[in-house]
Amino acid sequence: MEKKMVEQITSMDVDFAKWYTDVVIKSELIDYSSVRGCLILRPYGYAIWENIQKELDAKFKELGHENVAMPMFIPESLLQKEKDHVEGFAPEVAWVTHGGSEKLQERLCVRPTSETLFCEHYANVVQSWRDLPKLYNQWVSVVRWEKTTRPFLRHREFYWQEGHTIHATVEEAMQETLQMLDVYADFCENYLAMPVIKGQKTDKEKFAGAEKTYTIEAMMHDGKALQSGTSHYFGDGFARAFEIQFTDKDNQLKHPFQTSWGMSTRLIGGIIMTHGDDNGLVLPPRIAPIQAVVVPIAMHKPGVREKAEELTAALKAAGIRVKVDVSDNSPGWKFSEYEMKGVPVRVELGPKDIEAGQCVLVRRDNREKIAVKLENVAEEIKRVMDELQAALFNRALENRTARTYAAKDLDEMKAITAEKSGFVKAMWCGDEECELKIKEEAGLSSRCIPYEQEAVGEVCACCGKPAKHMVYWGVAY
Amino acid sequence: MEKKMVEQITSMDVDFAKWYTDVVIKSELIDYSSVRGCLILRPYGYAIWENIQKELDAKFKELGHENVAMPMFIPESLLQKEKDHVEGFAPEVAWVTHGGSEKLQERLCVRPTSETLFCEHYANVVQSWRDLPKLYNQWVSVVRWEKTTRPFLRHREFYWQEGHTIHATVEEAMQETLQMLDVYADFCENYLAMPVIKGQKTDKEKFAGAEKTYTIEAMMHDGKALQSGTSHYFGDGFARAFEIQFTDKDNQLKHPFQTSWGMSTRLIGGIIMTHGDDNGLVLPPRIAPIQAVVVPIAMHKPGVREKAEELTAALKAAGIRVKVDVSDNSPGWKFSEYEMKGVPVRVELGPKDIEAGQCVLVRRDNREKIAVKLENVAEEIKRVMDELQAALFNRALENRTARTYAAKDLDEMKAITAEKSGFVKAMWCGDEECELKIKEEAGLSSRCIPYEQEAVGEVCACCGKPAKHMVYWGVAY
Repeated sequence: MEKKMVEQITSMDVDFAKWYTDVVIKSELIDYSSVRGCLILRPYGYAIWENIQKELDAKFKELGHENVAMPMFIPESLLQKEKDHVEGFAPEVAWVTHGGSEKLQERLCVRPTSETLFCEHYANVVQSWRDLPKLYNQWVSVVRWEKTTRPFLRHREFYWQEGHTIHATVEEAMQETLQMLDVYADFCENYLAMPVIKGQKTDKEKFAGAEKTYTIEAMMHDGKALQSGTSHYFGDGFARAFEIQFTDKDNQLKHPFQTSWGMSTRLIGGIIMTHGDDNGLVLPPRIAPIQAVVVPIAMHKPGVREKAEELTAALKAAGIRVKVDVSDNSPGWKFSEYEMKGVPVRVELGPKDIEAGQCVLVRRDNREKIAVKLENVAEEIKRVMDELQAALFNRALENRTARTYAAKDLDEMKAITAEKSGFVKAMWCGDEECELKIKEEAGLSSRCIPYEQEAVGEVCACCGKPAKHMVYWGVAY
Repeated sequence: MEKKMVEQITSMDVDFAKWYTDVVIKSELIDYSSVRGCLILRPYGYAIWENIQKELDAKFKELGHENVAMPMFIPESLLQKEKDHVEGFAPEVAWVTHGGSEKLQERLCVRPTSETLFCEHYANVVQSWRDLPKLYNQWVSVVRWEKTTRPFLRHREFYWQEGHTIHATVEEAMQETLQMLDVYADFCENYLAMPVIKGQKTDKEKFAGAEKTYTIEAMMHDGKALQSGTSHYFGDGFARAFEIQFTDKDNQLKHPFQTSWGMSTRLIGGIIMTHGDDNGLVLPPRIAPIQAVVVPIAMHKPGVREKAEELTAALKAAGIRVKVDVSDNSPGWKFSEYEMKGVPVRVELGPKDIEAGQCVLVRRDNREKIAVKLENVAEEIKRVMDELQAALFNRALENRTARTYAAKDLDEMKAITAEKSGFVKAMWCGDEECELKIKEEAGLSSRCIPYEQEAVGEVCACCGKPAKHMVYWGVAY
């Protein structure tokens, strides 16, 4: 009995949202649990996250960061110490009120983010300039009791890393904030093949408690924006609220300066919506759990299975993450299955191939077939993977370019969004009132004030007063 | 201004408990948070955990296990599905009752362990014999609202891995249960240098919901026992309670068989209490975050610092986890600091050494000094580390041998425990009544029924009836 054929998924042009859900479920990335919004990362989904963790963690450590683990619980009084922060997060936290059968004296929230916990710890361990900087990171899950949830993009519990650093000077802290945004941008572009726009959030969109928030914004295949990573500069606001002080070299007691920065499992949603197609996932080779799958053809013929396994062992030894499927499912089933799973390269090997001393590589994105000599397979797969990695990035960049519009005024913004989906570049005076009006009338939120400014006009697209910044506007996940 | 000298810690012979707390705090493994029993793993403590994770995770994967991530919340009704399980855990869970400002319709507990969540998922994804086995693991923290807590040994929130597997047959599931206990034992002995006794728990001491629990028991320096890892065989009890069924090859609908197994951050407590001394931590080289520290002597002299840094780079290139301390603290301060931190090998390098083309290695446990030629340092350090690793294991084994006693009856057991601390081997009839009486009168709990049986008598030490097993009894952390 063969496993049933891979079911058809909804076409992305018919219903992008449905296509997305079909893909995350049928490629076995995720399963639902009985708690709404708390999802199960299945082995294939978690393996992508492990690859993301491995690369980022190595980079963080290379830059001098150390991993720690803070508690998952924050006492209510601790959460309340920084005013803006508690206002931003208290409405959406999960509260623990009982331990066993006893009511707690003070209720505890499950961390929605851990600034307050790090601050409490800093107050204990930072006394002198010699104790600075502390460059910390942790890999944990956090909880935000969202009303609307969506696989990878918005969970009530999601996995992330949160970096938290504390410095003696403003300059050092700012430098860290910007450095980590660069690390995020490089990672998205080089590993996930997701082009991003680096910029600063407006005050309205910045993190609760931050002085400045920097962001990388990616565009999904459907033209919507995905905030993919943020890096926050806190100044000494938290240090003052938590009474963190250090004796500086000049023997003066001072408040230190802080940052935090995070990326999460929503990146996996980003990968899916940037690169996927109607056959399922398309994974960038650098992050794919399985980079190549060997599918034996006519496996019942003598020597085929053995040759396929031998080839697999050779590819593994060459450093390729490879799998061979010797199950009794048909080759056709296997083709669909690994296309659904977004495996970058399929390696077909049948009796005629073996006779000719070759095999056939099939590239996931364009299904290009290449016959290669068996002695060259490993290097050919690597070459195909490099090409695929670059092609995915370029295709995403082309999509973004094609879907990025410029508008001079609110009418133009409305006209664009009525017909199209994408980024709208428009000038802004800096007033929150105009930002709110653009949101209300054109349905666009400010994505960021990009580093790369460009004068698409001279006055604010909303009020006509002198413009301060060019802003990317969009509809965000 | 130099950092203050490393403070004296309490001697372990004076007060072992106080010595332990001094070590975990002063070697900067842990800090307290404002939630009692929820501790902060500082960089040095977390780095040990990362090394433990790295080794175990590789071993799990080599044996075919895959990592997943289950939610941290369990609805009350889900926790209640398996009767023994809920009775064991419900009294000590933390309950979430509110999300934001709204009261939840059903309260959720923070996982104390995740059998129920895995079962719910299995019921979704296991239909046919082709879906079996599932060999899963996750690295997470869990919460148990304990009344008494102690760094590493008993936290309200602690870090662990929990393996969960599901199989088509009893034999496969039992084989997995025993295999994982062997993995744990090998890891403890070969990496942590902690000798362990493998055995089975009595029914009284087994995991809530398990048919059989296997354990590895280590002896700490003070003679007390540390349960260091457990592996559980569930039979089909959970599968029946959660209605997990699969169609077998014979087309019959059957219940599958399950296991779970876990090791936690309490292992770090085990390392401390097995190997530590009055100068602080002593870390087994295979798990030490810093395997060697280079301390320049007379660092102000020309060329010393440069030579120390050059040596450090060479050691790093040779695969040694090495650090150089070029701070302006005195060599004496550095010696104490890295002894406190349990760094296996200190490398002293001063002007005279440089002149003689040598440096001095100091082994952490016995402070043995060895002058070695600079061209041989890397291999000499590796040799010293191997010797240290073996010496730690042997010393711990000698301690256990010296502190293991045999007793024929309850009076002998009481006489031993009145004067000594250690394991007592005694025969047991298998009745829980005798187990309870031994606990009450001699203060000893059953640690395990060891694989390696030995007839220290013919009748139960408690009731005099025919004995079924030889049991290790002890006082446990």
